[in-house]
Amino acid sequence: MPVVVQRRNYIFNTIKTVFEHYGYQPIETPAMENLETLTGKYGEEGDRLIFKILARGEKLNKALSTSNQSNLAEEALRYDLTVPFARFVVQHQNDLAFPFRRYQIQPVWRADRPQKGRYREFFQCDADVIGTESLRCEVEIVQMLDDVFTKLKLPVEIRINNRKLLTALADYVGEADKLIPLTVAIDKLDKMPLDKVLSDLNNQGFSAEAQTKLQSVFEAAQDFKDSESLMAKMDNIFAGNAEGEKGLEELRYVFAKVKLLGLATAKLRFDMSLARGLNYYTGAIFEVLPLTDAQVGSISGGGRYDDLTGMFGMPGMSGVGISFGADRIYDMLEANDGFPKDEVTGTQVLFVNFGETEADYCHELLVDIRKAGFRAELYPEAAKMKKQMKYANDKQIPYVAIVGENEMAEQSVSLRVMATGDQELVNKNELIQKITK
Amino acid sequence: MPVVVQRRNYIFNTIKTVFEHYGYQPIETPAMENLETLTGKYGEEGDRLIFKILARGEKLNKALSTSNQSNLAEEALRYDLTVPFARFVVQHQNDLAFPFRRYQIQPVWRADRPQKGRYREFFQCDADVIGTESLRCEVEIVQMLDDVFTKLKLPVEIRINNRKLLTALADYVGEADKLIPLTVAIDKLDKMPLDKVLSDLNNQGFSAEAQTKLQSVFEAAQDFKDSESLMAKMDNIFAGNAEGEKGLEELRYVFAKVKLLGLATAKLRFDMSLARGLNYYTGAIFEVLPLTDAQVGSISGGGRYDDLTGMFGMPGMSGVGISFGADRIYDMLEANDGFPKDEVTGTQVLFVNFGETEADYCHELLVDIRKAGFRAELYPEAAKMKKQMKYANDKQIPYVAIVGENEMAEQSVSLRVMATGDQELVNKNELIQKITK
Repeated sequence: MPVVVQRRNYIFNTIKTVFEHYGYQPIETPAMENLETLTGKYGEEGDRLIFKILARGEKLNKALSTSNQSNLAEEALRYDLTVPFARFVVQHQNDLAFPFRRYQIQPVWRADRPQKGRYREFFQCDADVIGTESLRCEVEIVQMLDDVFTKLKLPVEIRINNRKLLTALADYVGEADKLIPLTVAIDKLDKMPLDKVLSDLNNQGFSAEAQTKLQSVFEAAQDFKDSESLMAKMDNIFAGNAEGEKGLEELRYVFAKVKLLGLATAKLRFDMSLARGLNYYTGAIFEVLPLTDAQVGSISGGGRYDDLTGMFGMPGMSGVGISFGADRIYDMLEANDGFPKDEVTGTQVLFVNFGETEADYCHELLVDIRKAGFRAELYPEAAKMKKQMKYANDKQIPYVAIVGENEMAEQSVSLRVMATGDQELVNKNELIQKITK
Repeated sequence: MPVVVQRRNYIFNTIKTVFEHYGYQPIETPAMENLETLTGKYGEEGDRLIFKILARGEKLNKALSTSNQSNLAEEALRYDLTVPFARFVVQHQNDLAFPFRRYQIQPVWRADRPQKGRYREFFQCDADVIGTESLRCEVEIVQMLDDVFTKLKLPVEIRINNRKLLTALADYVGEADKLIPLTVAIDKLDKMPLDKVLSDLNNQGFSAEAQTKLQSVFEAAQDFKDSESLMAKMDNIFAGNAEGEKGLEELRYVFAKVKLLGLATAKLRFDMSLARGLNYYTGAIFEVLPLTDAQVGSISGGGRYDDLTGMFGMPGMSGVGISFGADRIYDMLEANDGFPKDEVTGTQVLFVNFGETEADYCHELLVDIRKAGFRAELYPEAAKMKKQMKYANDKQIPYVAIVGENEMAEQSVSLRVMATGDQELVNKNELIQKITK
């Protein structure tokens, strides 16, 4: 529906403007990718949720005759923007200026069962810079998040962690080979009590000593809401662990620069319990939580990866990216009446149609009104007044211009403000100023 | 690539702004429609070119076991915006204010063999008003076309015909039952000599008398470049034919109102040889041709239909619509250097990175520059100057800001204009004014 499209565009335009202020440029990739580009990139469940395009003509007949299911489709709809971006970078590597900053706002498709807040087609909104290891990029991601949510008037907390600390943590508790289950467990910490998470880890073979150590780390993480203190605490824990020390150094760099540059409204917080399951993160991990609606969950997230394009034969390209959850942001703004009124670009003035002569008079006025940049229309038929007024109401048009014999004789227009019902006779040359008010 | 996305958005934004000035509102429909919604709507060839979505899980197994090809897919990618719009109107009929004006700019997919100027995924850009028979809407479509192509600085001729005249013509030549082959033949008139078209009609069983009459009508159409004269000529031919008289009356209405209201740059011309093959048109038929590049062909087209939603069980909804050929418009603007320079929203200033201290200084300046609305970036690493300058060149960044020890000591920036190579020492507080220039 129009209002949904316009409001979603308000969110996208806000984010786009910020991306562009930081030198990111838009790209778009085709909806269809080769199936083999996508297969195996999203885990087993992901593979099942990819929409495949049925082969056609001879290829379909051949596939059916061999009854080999895998030949029924050679193409598929994109499942996210990350894999198509990696494919794009490899394909256009000779035409891109590195470090390459791109943003991309396009729909993706997943064969999930549709339910509240989960759609089969939804927009992703990503920005990545690839081809540099500079931590300045992490700093700028924090700045961009601050800019976007300040513009959207949503107070947020930006949580940051570093994947290297998770690796160091697995090492510290003596379970270096169990980094993945540890990451999965950590991701559950905001939904489950610590006890329960630890007992899950116990079932996965984590030693009693490991559990005790983890308990002490996570209790500390919960106690030290202040990032500086928590980093100091982690200094002790990871002293002598090269990976841990590096992770803390990277974190401190980001905090120091953000302090130097300042943030408008967002808070930045070190969160030791942030893991974001995705195994390709290698450095910073980001997540953004609204400060007002705790139950909404993360509305943005991202991180640093060291090898995005390796899967397509171009290794060693480090990058860092961020993704905005446009649907959740939409729902929050809607719930909080947070959409600006003037972003719905509907008609501003409706001219009532009383018949051909009056309509001609109005139609001529419309030429100038539109030239002045207003959105205006003439009801196309001389329908009953009541019907035309109902139309204005249904379309939430703020002004209605009424022109009958009298108005024409006086070279004027009766202008009604729909919100108040006030009606005023206005000289036709002054109409534009009246609407601007 | 970024420049393509940005230029295409320039075209779409221009068209959108005009649509909104006329009270049209955006809608979007899902990429996937039920296959049965699409099947049979685009003719046999169309059916073949629809991309179908492979069924999943149990449904796929069942389809394979019965070897019934038609069960392999229940959904398909949209093939145009018209059928999804009709489905949308029927589905949301109780929530829409009629007459309903919508515009829609989304990709569509066709399984054509890819070739120059023909893509498997391409954008359509449509506006329709549905639920009124008012000819004011036809007038406004002419105005919208004029507004769009004036803004795009493309001189065009808007050609208009009326389907009722084609019906009357078939009747006049005594072949009322052969309207479709006549329409198809007429569509060929701009690519083929009249002789050849007539001999094709001969093969399809058109009588010798019919051919003679058609020849005289089309020769007249070619002779009378002036629309008024051609209408007068047609008055004679269709005198007493109700359908023909009605078609001419409708045409004259549009011409009269357009004359009253005026057009900025477009020319409007009655073209008896305009048919646009689509059998659902019932009144006005539009086509827009560039005056400069004759070989490009039509860059916009549309018309009046009396029954768009009948196929989904909601009869009697008349409407009129227009569609813009964004790809052709893109190619024309590119060939004529017609894209405004400031529409490419790339980085305006690159700050060279000489090391941490200098980068901090620059990064602080960036906060203010971005706040002032500029697109600016810091090269993320202290790479060699040559590499950073190459990056600025590749990204076509107009200004490069260079900050070394001297600049920092003087609280200034050396600003280089890339186009000229001129470089100037600027106080850091005056940087913004220098870039604005």
